[in-house]
Amino acid sequence: MSQESQTRYVRVAELEIDAAQADAFAVATREVGQASVISEDGCLALYAVAEKDNPSRVRVLEIYRDPAAYQAHLQTPHFKKFRAATDLMVKSRKLIDATPISFATKPGITT
Amino acid sequence: MSQESQTRYVRVAELEIDAAQADAFAVATREVGQASVISEDGCLALYAVAEKDNPSRVRVLEIYRDPAAYQAHLQTPHFKKFRAATDLMVKSRKLIDATPISFATKPGITT
Repeated sequence: MSQESQTRYVRVAELEIDAAQADAFAVATREVGQASVISEDGCLALYAVAEKDNPSRVRVLEIYRDPAAYQAHLQTPHFKKFRAATDLMVKSRKLIDATPISFATKPGITT
Repeated sequence: MSQESQTRYVRVAELEIDAAQADAFAVATREVGQASVISEDGCLALYAVAEKDNPSRVRVLEIYRDPAAYQAHLQTPHFKKFRAATDLMVKSRKLIDATPISFATKPGITT
């Protein structure tokens, strides 16, 4: 693992979404994911998936270059819009700071 | 979201690793992650992270083009080697099938 990767800021989130709002949450999540990775130098990856057997349970993996890049993300208009739009859709939210073990991806996969 | 992304095979895993074997597990995980994404057309991304407050707890996100690509992955020499090398390092293993909500990543991030 490179020294650089040790400074990364990695966050795992487990969310419980209001089932009636799952589609709206997905649309907003795709919008903020694309905007963040495209427009923020320090936002390296944002993944969100739903559990197949319980689609209200959403898991998110966020990877930033470093902690400062995460703080910058929180100040962007697209994040603020996302948070305002989805805050009431999220019934519970567990946030877990994480450290990288292994990242491997083909170039630029998107939904 | 594209129609194509609906056929993806996405797996989340929560593992509890023997703490004494965490470094060896990380080395093996990086090796299989790189080999899989580079050599398998259908293996799109493999991420593994440890919880910062409990490094024995590892979370994995695996994304394959489709279910057949996942089945092909299980037959590769690098996966079989990984599984044999790490099987006794893993104290518990929770596997969760998932569906994509949003994937966004800069090209080719690696550890």
